[in-house]
Amino acid sequence: MATETRSARSRSHILRTAVEMCAEHGFTFVTMDRVAAEAGVGKPTLYRWWPSKAHLMLDALLEEVSGRYFLIPDTGDIREDLRSWLRGFVALFVDPLLRALCVGVASAQLVDADLREQMMMGIHAPAREHNQARIRGAQAAGQLPDTDPQLIEDCLIGPLWYRVLISGMPVTDEVADEIVHRQLG
Amino acid sequence: MATETRSARSRSHILRTAVEMCAEHGFTFVTMDRVAAEAGVGKPTLYRWWPSKAHLMLDALLEEVSGRYFLIPDTGDIREDLRSWLRGFVALFVDPLLRALCVGVASAQLVDADLREQMMMGIHAPAREHNQARIRGAQAAGQLPDTDPQLIEDCLIGPLWYRVLISGMPVTDEVADEIVHRQLG
Repeated sequence: MATETRSARSRSHILRTAVEMCAEHGFTFVTMDRVAAEAGVGKPTLYRWWPSKAHLMLDALLEEVSGRYFLIPDTGDIREDLRSWLRGFVALFVDPLLRALCVGVASAQLVDADLREQMMMGIHAPAREHNQARIRGAQAAGQLPDTDPQLIEDCLIGPLWYRVLISGMPVTDEVADEIVHRQLG
Repeated sequence: MATETRSARSRSHILRTAVEMCAEHGFTFVTMDRVAAEAGVGKPTLYRWWPSKAHLMLDALLEEVSGRYFLIPDTGDIREDLRSWLRGFVALFVDPLLRALCVGVASAQLVDADLREQMMMGIHAPAREHNQARIRGAQAAGQLPDTDPQLIEDCLIGPLWYRVLISGMPVTDEVADEIVHRQLG
């Protein structure tokens, strides 16, 4: 028990160290060697928990960002719920550290099948289940068109990710609201 | 003149070698060392043209994919034009080699500011100018809603890129057509 607590504390300390290093020097500066040195732990300790820097940074992201960010709220008002969901992503993307974490992990998972699998299981699968149910509920209430719920979700969140990952155009609350408006009319 | 021709031929040969290597072994397998060895040229030759593997692969992508892929056609029928534009991206993403090139370059430019700049100048800036003009033309003809043309473009292309880069959901002609339908009604 005491060992488990120490272990959890050590894990937390390592994640925090990685996040601070990323905040100060950027995602590419962070390496397993540097995190181990800065956190004052041996590299075997790091590799016991994370097979790569990218896996460590995915966990660091999940420590920083509550899972609720990825879930459409349910207040009954679908327009407001979709707006606050997208504005949550905007908040993520305008914060330099969180954006660096998101972009770094997004880049890494594109060329690392194992990390991609972990991201799918850790973030996408649970969020998708929740969000599809929320969208189907709104469809049943006549608040959303009767299209494939997955495509509705993609048409909402896709334009924001596209701006962050590809076009580099700004993401703002106004953009988020306009995307919702274009989907709901 | 003869030197320039030989030089162009050599450049072409290197790009083709890199593409074949990527097709056979995947994007991450390709390195400057391996391309130089396989193409039978010295590494200084490679580095004279490309500062990194990612820059070489961006050029390889541009050799494989005509610039027209990124441009909305103009037949006067905006619905058909948007459909064939998005279906062009679908064709890109369902081809395993082209998808690997796109995804590899997309991953690299997220953590390489210089490559990102080259991608912006080489692909995005010219395409954006053309596409914004096409969308404004359709708006003037009352065929598209009077929203920021950039956001209209993002709402069309963003969901496809989101599926490729983040969610991993399939991209098909039917998805492309449905995205256009959701934007045009």
